[in-house]
Amino acid sequence: MNVFDAVRTKRAVRQFSDRPISEDDLIKILNAGRWSGSSKNIQPWHFVVLRQRERLIALSQCGQFAGHLAGATVGVALVTGDWRERWPVAFDLGRAAQNMMLVAHEMGIGSVMANIYEIEQARALLGLPPELMCYAAISFGYPADPAELQRPPRAGGKRPLADVVHWEHW
Amino acid sequence: MNVFDAVRTKRAVRQFSDRPISEDDLIKILNAGRWSGSSKNIQPWHFVVLRQRERLIALSQCGQFAGHLAGATVGVALVTGDWRERWPVAFDLGRAAQNMMLVAHEMGIGSVMANIYEIEQARALLGLPPELMCYAAISFGYPADPAELQRPPRAGGKRPLADVVHWEHW
Repeated sequence: MNVFDAVRTKRAVRQFSDRPISEDDLIKILNAGRWSGSSKNIQPWHFVVLRQRERLIALSQCGQFAGHLAGATVGVALVTGDWRERWPVAFDLGRAAQNMMLVAHEMGIGSVMANIYEIEQARALLGLPPELMCYAAISFGYPADPAELQRPPRAGGKRPLADVVHWEHW
Repeated sequence: MNVFDAVRTKRAVRQFSDRPISEDDLIKILNAGRWSGSSKNIQPWHFVVLRQRERLIALSQCGQFAGHLAGATVGVALVTGDWRERWPVAFDLGRAAQNMMLVAHEMGIGSVMANIYEIEQARALLGLPPELMCYAAISFGYPADPAELQRPPRAGGKRPLADVVHWEHW
C-alpha cells in the first residue's frame, strides 16, 4: 500500500476480531512510532503495551470515550512527561501515533485513539513514576468487520479543502 | 513506496533545491493533512500555505530553529486555537503534520518541522484573527542534495526499542 492511499483510506476502527496480532507485526508498529521525528530529536515517549484483557478493560475506564480499548487486541499507552507544560511534546506524540496507525493500516490492522482523562488512575494501572503520565492510548486489532478497512469516507466527514487551506494569508 | 519504508526512511531535510513543487503534488500533501483523524473529528486546523520568498523569510524569523523556512519551496503554517488550553489539539496537529510529511517523502519531497515561538509576530504576518495562533510550521521542498532522501539513519539517533517499549507495566 502506498503512503497516499494509506492516508486516504485510514478509518477509525473501534471493534476488533479475536485474530491475534503477530509479534513481528507488533514490533513493526512499535518501531514505526519509535522512528518518528520529534522536536530536537528528544523522542519524548514511552509505549506501554497492554495485551492482558483485564488490563485493557481497566485502561478503557480511564477515559470517557476510551471504551474501545476493552476490546482491543493490543493497547499502546503513550507515556511522557507533563505535556501541559511543553506543548511540542503533545505534537510529537501525535506524530509517533500517526506513524504507528498508518503502518498498522497497511497490514490490515485497524486502530483508533483514546484520550485518557483519569490521569492518576492510569498512572496507577501502568505503574508510572510520578514525573510521567499517560494522556492517550491507541487500540489496535483486526477489524471485527473486515469491510471496515475498505469503508468509504463518510460524505461531509472532513472539512473541504477550501475551508482548511489559505494561500499566503488568512 | 509502502508505508513502513516511508516511516523507516523519513529524514528531516533542511536544505532545499530550486525545483518547484507542482500544484498537484502540493494539493496531495494538503489533502493528506486534511484527511487526518482527530479527537471527536474536530479537525482543529487551518493550513496557511506560503510560497512568496519574503513571507517565508519572515516566518523563519518567528522561531529560534525555524531558519530552514527561509529556503523552503513551500511553507505550511499550522493554525489552530490556543492549544495550551486543550492539549489534544496539539496531538491532532502532529498527526496531520505527519500525514503531510510522509506523503511528501513518498513523492521525493523533503520536509522538516519548525516550532513558532513568536506567536504575535506570526499572527501579524499570517493575518490571523485573535482566537487563532500558529505554533508550528512545516518546510517542504526537494532536497538540495538528493542523497538526503536516501541518507541512512544516524547510528544511535533513536532510542532503542527496549528503552522505549514496556510490556504491560512500567
